[in-house]
Amino acid sequence: MNDVYSDIGFAKLDLSRSDRTGMPETVYCAGKTKEQLLEILKTFHEKGMAVLGTRCSPEHWDFIKGSGLPLEYHESARIIILNEKRKKTVLNGMLAICAAGTADLPVAEEAALTAAFFGADVRRHYDIGITGLHRLISKIDDIRKADVIIAVAGMEGALPSVVAGLVKAPVIGLPTSVGYGASFQGLSALLTMINSCAEGVSVVNIDNGFGAAAQACRILRLKGK
Amino acid sequence: MNDVYSDIGFAKLDLSRSDRTGMPETVYCAGKTKEQLLEILKTFHEKGMAVLGTRCSPEHWDFIKGSGLPLEYHESARIIILNEKRKKTVLNGMLAICAAGTADLPVAEEAALTAAFFGADVRRHYDIGITGLHRLISKIDDIRKADVIIAVAGMEGALPSVVAGLVKAPVIGLPTSVGYGASFQGLSALLTMINSCAEGVSVVNIDNGFGAAAQACRILRLKGK
Amino acid sequence: MNDVYSDIGFAKLDLSRSDRTGMPETVYCAGKTKEQLLEILKTFHEKGMAVLGTRCSPEHWDFIKGSGLPLEYHESARIIILNEKRKKTVLNGMLAICAAGTADLPVAEEAALTAAFFGADVRRHYDIGITGLHRLISKIDDIRKADVIIAVAGMEGALPSVVAGLVKAPVIGLPTSVGYGASFQGLSALLTMINSCAEGVSVVNIDNGFGAAAQACRILRLKGK
Amino acid sequence: MNDVYSDIGFAKLDLSRSDRTGMPETVYCAGKTKEQLLEILKTFHEKGMAVLGTRCSPEHWDFIKGSGLPLEYHESARIIILNEKRKKTVLNGMLAICAAGTADLPVAEEAALTAAFFGADVRRHYDIGITGLHRLISKIDDIRKADVIIAVAGMEGALPSVVAGLVKAPVIGLPTSVGYGASFQGLSALLTMINSCAEGVSVVNIDNGFGAAAQACRILRLKGK
Amino acid sequence: MNDVYSDIGFAKLDLSRSDRTGMPETVYCAGKTKEQLLEILKTFHEKGMAVLGTRCSPEHWDFIKGSGLPLEYHESARIIILNEKRKKTVLNGMLAICAAGTADLPVAEEAALTAAFFGADVRRHYDIGITGLHRLISKIDDIRKADVIIAVAGMEGALPSVVAGLVKAPVIGLPTSVGYGASFQGLSALLTMINSCAEGVSVVNIDNGFGAAAQACRILRLKGK
Amino acid sequence: MNDVYSDIGFAKLDLSRSDRTGMPETVYCAGKTKEQLLEILKTFHEKGMAVLGTRCSPEHWDFIKGSGLPLEYHESARIIILNEKRKKTVLNGMLAICAAGTADLPVAEEAALTAAFFGADVRRHYDIGITGLHRLISKIDDIRKADVIIAVAGMEGALPSVVAGLVKAPVIGLPTSVGYGASFQGLSALLTMINSCAEGVSVVNIDNGFGAAAQACRILRLKGK
Amino acid sequence: MNDVYSDIGFAKLDLSRSDRTGMPETVYCAGKTKEQLLEILKTFHEKGMAVLGTRCSPEHWDFIKGSGLPLEYHESARIIILNEKRKKTVLNGMLAICAAGTADLPVAEEAALTAAFFGADVRRHYDIGITGLHRLISKIDDIRKADVIIAVAGMEGALPSVVAGLVKAPVIGLPTSVGYGASFQGLSALLTMINSCAEGVSVVNIDNGFGAAAQACRILRLKGK
Amino acid sequence: MNDVYSDIGFAKLDLSRSDRTGMPETVYCAGKTKEQLLEILKTFHEKGMAVLGTRCSPEHWDFIKGSGLPLEYHESARIIILNEKRKKTVLNGMLAICAAGTADLPVAEEAALTAAFFGADVRRHYDIGITGLHRLISKIDDIRKADVIIAVAGMEGALPSVVAGLVKAPVIGLPTSVGYGASFQGLSALLTMINSCAEGVSVVNIDNGFGAAAQACRILRLKGK
Repeated sequence: MNDVYSDIGFAKLDLSRSDRTGMPETVYCAGKTKEQLLEILKTFHEKGMAVLGTRCSPEHWDFIKGSGLPLEYHESARIIILNEKRKKTVLNGMLAICAAGTADLPVAEEAALTAAFFGADVRRHYDIGITGLHRLISKIDDIRKADVIIAVAGMEGALPSVVAGLVKAPVIGLPTSVGYGASFQGLSALLTMINSCAEGVSVVNIDNGFGAAAQACRILRLKGK
Repeated sequence: MNDVYSDIGFAKLDLSRSDRTGMPETVYCAGKTKEQLLEILKTFHEKGMAVLGTRCSPEHWDFIKGSGLPLEYHESARIIILNEKRKKTVLNGMLAICAAGTADLPVAEEAALTAAFFGADVRRHYDIGITGLHRLISKIDDIRKADVIIAVAGMEGALPSVVAGLVKAPVIGLPTSVGYGASFQGLSALLTMINSCAEGVSVVNIDNGFGAAAQACRILRLKGK
Repeated sequence: MNDVYSDIGFAKLDLSRSDRTGMPETVYCAGKTKEQLLEILKTFHEKGMAVLGTRCSPEHWDFIKGSGLPLEYHESARIIILNEKRKKTVLNGMLAICAAGTADLPVAEEAALTAAFFGADVRRHYDIGITGLHRLISKIDDIRKADVIIAVAGMEGALPSVVAGLVKAPVIGLPTSVGYGASFQGLSALLTMINSCAEGVSVVNIDNGFGAAAQACRILRLKGK
Repeated sequence: MNDVYSDIGFAKLDLSRSDRTGMPETVYCAGKTKEQLLEILKTFHEKGMAVLGTRCSPEHWDFIKGSGLPLEYHESARIIILNEKRKKTVLNGMLAICAAGTADLPVAEEAALTAAFFGADVRRHYDIGITGLHRLISKIDDIRKADVIIAVAGMEGALPSVVAGLVKAPVIGLPTSVGYGASFQGLSALLTMINSCAEGVSVVNIDNGFGAAAQACRILRLKGK
Repeated sequence: MNDVYSDIGFAKLDLSRSDRTGMPETVYCAGKTKEQLLEILKTFHEKGMAVLGTRCSPEHWDFIKGSGLPLEYHESARIIILNEKRKKTVLNGMLAICAAGTADLPVAEEAALTAAFFGADVRRHYDIGITGLHRLISKIDDIRKADVIIAVAGMEGALPSVVAGLVKAPVIGLPTSVGYGASFQGLSALLTMINSCAEGVSVVNIDNGFGAAAQACRILRLKGK
Repeated sequence: MNDVYSDIGFAKLDLSRSDRTGMPETVYCAGKTKEQLLEILKTFHEKGMAVLGTRCSPEHWDFIKGSGLPLEYHESARIIILNEKRKKTVLNGMLAICAAGTADLPVAEEAALTAAFFGADVRRHYDIGITGLHRLISKIDDIRKADVIIAVAGMEGALPSVVAGLVKAPVIGLPTSVGYGASFQGLSALLTMINSCAEGVSVVNIDNGFGAAAQACRILRLKGK
Repeated sequence: MNDVYSDIGFAKLDLSRSDRTGMPETVYCAGKTKEQLLEILKTFHEKGMAVLGTRCSPEHWDFIKGSGLPLEYHESARIIILNEKRKKTVLNGMLAICAAGTADLPVAEEAALTAAFFGADVRRHYDIGITGLHRLISKIDDIRKADVIIAVAGMEGALPSVVAGLVKAPVIGLPTSVGYGASFQGLSALLTMINSCAEGVSVVNIDNGFGAAAQACRILRLKGK
Repeated sequence: MNDVYSDIGFAKLDLSRSDRTGMPETVYCAGKTKEQLLEILKTFHEKGMAVLGTRCSPEHWDFIKGSGLPLEYHESARIIILNEKRKKTVLNGMLAICAAGTADLPVAEEAALTAAFFGADVRRHYDIGITGLHRLISKIDDIRKADVIIAVAGMEGALPSVVAGLVKAPVIGLPTSVGYGASFQGLSALLTMINSCAEGVSVVNIDNGFGAAAQACRILRLKGK
């Protein structure tokens, strides 16, 4: 293994991940101080790299927005993008993101923006939860055209199971912490998806829009290969 | 309160429940020795009462079947019925029991036999889980005719939510312990139902076919009242 | 299925639910931005529809109260009602709402206001928890007149079980997050109700006053039918 | 501390506990091999001591019953008693043991036999669960005469809360593993009791009839002191 | 049952509890609005009764302190007392309150102040956790003089087990939410106490100083009776 | 939706799933009686279809093996295959199945046999758990050639995270119930995989070899498309 | 990394672990078929290596005992040892194993036999649980001589905390599944140990005598180094 | 036991712990009021002792920093040190602290500062999580020189298992609460470490940097002894 990284003391920036995993660089902002985040972004900027940051809080943004770096911030999705224009990956195929309710949108958007950054052609189908099944049915022909699907839902979390029974593409279940009481901050939705009796569902962590998108893009790379 | 009961030492048989709650007598057999069960059944038989026993194991049945009492046993549903002919309640309306998979049938049948014993007109719709939605859709017109619905499902437990979005009647979610791994013996299905984003779902305990039926019959009594 | 909805981008407003489920429109406000909520309310207002909003925070209210829409806000129950006068449903029968303690009142009121909006005749019996059983007993004759009962309790959550043993009507157990320590934000009360050894109890999510009322009203529709 | 014990290799028999805690000797049989149990009983017999063994399985009993030791076995309560006649403690006051259902009897009997061995005057009130409240009410005058009460219940576990609201004596909540599904082998009943909104309830482990009795007897020693 | 209460709309004040349970009146302030709390206190004051309020927040206190009612507030224990001078109960015997660490003091004080209000002679033994066993041992002679003991501990919660092995009096285990990580807000301490292998421990809810004191005082009433 | 199914009373056999989802028929044997299983297999045999049965117990097999149907049984993987020769699907690309320990093999084989039945080219890499990292490293070049990877592990479940950091292909985490104590029958491994800090991991249920394979095959269909 | 292993198909035997980690070879027998276990043992025997097998069931033993391999079996500890005489490691220092109750002995013995096989000087102190503190105190001088201590306990699991407060050596907490009810098969003991307020406690999995011993021996290697 | 302590009312300061356990004094600041903390520090200062305080909040620091005591504060690690120059212990050997991600640094630093205060030679290896295995591999020669290792990780928590498979020294697993969703505030990482299939891992509480360091230092004392 002759991978390289840049050691900036508190962090070892993985500069070869793109070669190793085929995906652009990303930074998990939560748990980093605003000073650490800024230093990381500057280091990547000096290397001329495009970077996506997830879970970037408004406090982070307030600190770094005046830094002069070419940054864009998506507040509700908590995503920050550095040097968006320099990213180069383009993926074949199409990714559909289906979301159950309006409250699930921030997580769905984290997935959508991440996948777009990774080069995917993303189509959004929002507010098509299973309670009003006609909304999902009216969109199903479009959804069936996708090569991979992310199904986002909180509360009872049944959307991925229903979608997977209607399509041939792999479905990534993305549970959200939307709900209250016995939803246990998304645990109920996670369990629903893990226990899906439908074939073709695999699951990522609660509110992990980034992870769902990363997995979807790894899958899309098979298309036309 | 001037209710009465029969004290047979280890149990106080509630002889006025029928007056108080409007439902026939029932016995929860689990945790009772076979000798206790027989004595209870004999006592009710002497009073000329029809009684339903739930969770009656094959071991219970082997011991009591030669007792000369007028008994019927439904092994897979673990139900025993004493003096079935003497029960008198007839309920208005119709109860639909929808079950997701074949493995859910023992619990669905516990509900069906209990409700029939309580006087309900029961219609069964089995193996209509959400993975093959067309099976549910093909039955939905029949299901919409019901006055109350019991929706039975294990694993991801999404059936009650989907059904409740398609009908006007109250839906009783009946989770089963069918599944494995993170189904946690039905906990996942229970949480799914409790967190249903659909209106019109209330839930009973895992594998509690009896409880679902008892609640359905309390509801049916409103019909035509 | 030829149901219709209004697509306003981030949401698909279900305009046919009333026909399909027989209940007026409702909006779950939590997780929606205040701008989204306002847009949804305006859309419904343009259609001339009465709408109930649940989990409407004071921040939501501060933003929308100056909008000129005909709105009423119930802060402790977190309920907002649009065009209350235009709602038309009137239900037969009577719904009793029994609450264990004063701290359970916000949830009990969410249920009461929802049911009233849905057309029910609601009677409140508050602060009749099981510790001072005489308070419950002194009200039991009134409670027995109800066609359906919502029993609200936090902490040990025993009220629905006790009530269900004393009446013939179906009881909807509504656990609240009232309590501390091992109440686990209502989980203990939920488990108590799910495990009720009394017949005639089915349960909704913790603090889900809306869901309890919606189910109660589905049940009341059977009355006189 | 100058306490003494007898070291028999795999166990150190606590011979001074009686002096230190005021209670006779006891042995927890579960997890001990039948050979170990026999050796322990022989050692105590040689010291001329009365001993109570809990959780003594039928396999244990089959092995030791032919040993010639003066033993009595209560199978359903899984209790074994050595040299019952030599026990000397007599306690003032009276202990009432209230049990909710017939299935709770083995645990209730473990408590009753233990307390009797410890010298208590025990009165049993069985099958008085909260579903048929009239059964409890009809016994309440007797129960109020007790100096301490053990209230035994599985499933929803509400009996101790209801009893404690009706009496002045301390109530020990004894949850049992009776139930199924979301009773989680007694966890639900335990949580109900721990969260009791009634004053005067403290709780022991699930199925721990021995522990409830031991605590009740410590309390009874205050009587007349 | 001819008990009485005062119905003030949102609450039914239990005026006969003192007769029924032998204990003075108490109010659980959490979950009540400050206006509700004030009205309740005024009502009791008009009846000339002494009342203890638990979980009274600084916000509650700020609102009611200028009301002219004879009130005392103990901030760290969150206790408020109305008409302290009018309480009349005096209990025989002595209660020892043992606390493991300094962080457990607010809960220990809730217990101590409650018990004192209920008429008990309370002795405090603080900061005697099991890590420095010599601190406990140096106090054990005093602790052995108590008729009942409350043992307070968070984190690993082992104090009640160790104390109960050293004394003859009943021990009430009072777990606190002190700790972090896998203490799960006191669940770990609660489980430790419930699973105590020592005889003579029964347990109340996490941080329930009031409940521990109420149970201790019910026990003390046996003394000299 | 004009899908079709065969209604055999207790089950509705989904005859159009192959068209709808692109995958051959499968049967979940657990929870079905042996008579039900035989009838289902006969029905599919009459239609001339190849079918895979999962979780087929030795008791199932003993009953059906003499039926004359063209069946193969893989005991450790609990898989039964009907008419294996008639299956037609052939998938492009290659699937690597990596398993951590020998005890994980039955689950790994369930995945391997299912994927082979679904038409995949499967390569097995067994006993390459993270404790002896050199075993994994020595195989990594082969594993990197796969188009999709299933990583199977029980106990601490870290294999998928480590693998995903070393490859570009999507990794399906398949937790097993191998372990003891705080592995909680696979829950610990499931949580590890769900919380993977590596990109490119999505997860199926504990011991769900079938589900992992079905998802892998949905993904492989993108290859060369 | 140039480590080597022997690939026998279903397993890759790690032949360089001894060099890499300094410890002899071991085999986890659970989950391996008896044929697999035998083949593994034969392979190691051919290499002339001493091997310890843990969780070796009586069924395993019955199959392999007639194989002619030089094997010893310790049934209660479920340990099998191959070529015990060829092991060479001798460790400095002394390991004390303290166990709370007789039921904890099988796990304590798994630790003791493992550590002895790894070359440690092991001293056993059994049945010194915290209920009878005098038993522990009477042994404390001996225990203080140990260089590392394993403290074994089930139920409330307090022994490691108490011991660690009395000694200077590192204590490894080894929770056992001994207990019932809310012990949750050792979870309670595990949580107690993890939350220990005493310094110097680190913890291994429930019933993991092997792991405790392996860690103790890694520690002992520092002695005299 | 003739240990001594200083009783300052709300706390009993353990002045002999250093003799008994060989470690300097420490104070757990959380749960103490700022006044209590100051009084404790003053008492120790009067005795001329060096003291380490953990979980010292910025509010604590703001209150005590003007006290004139010789104090140092490390905000991110929440550590305060009194009289650092007076500490005397020097330990042989070397401790390596490996941390998975930047967000784990505050906990890693709590461990590092504590161990340094206790006299250890500490070397830090940060941001070497398992996703980019090359970062860990590039440091492994240095890590192998350590006599004891603390491996810090949140999220999936796999670092200790991977490290322990590569070294001979004992590894202390230190889970952190870093993560979201199903990380359950560190529970997932804790379970991963407890279930480690690698030998040589024992675990402390989530975020317990202090405890990990204290255990590491107890171990280091064996070195050269």
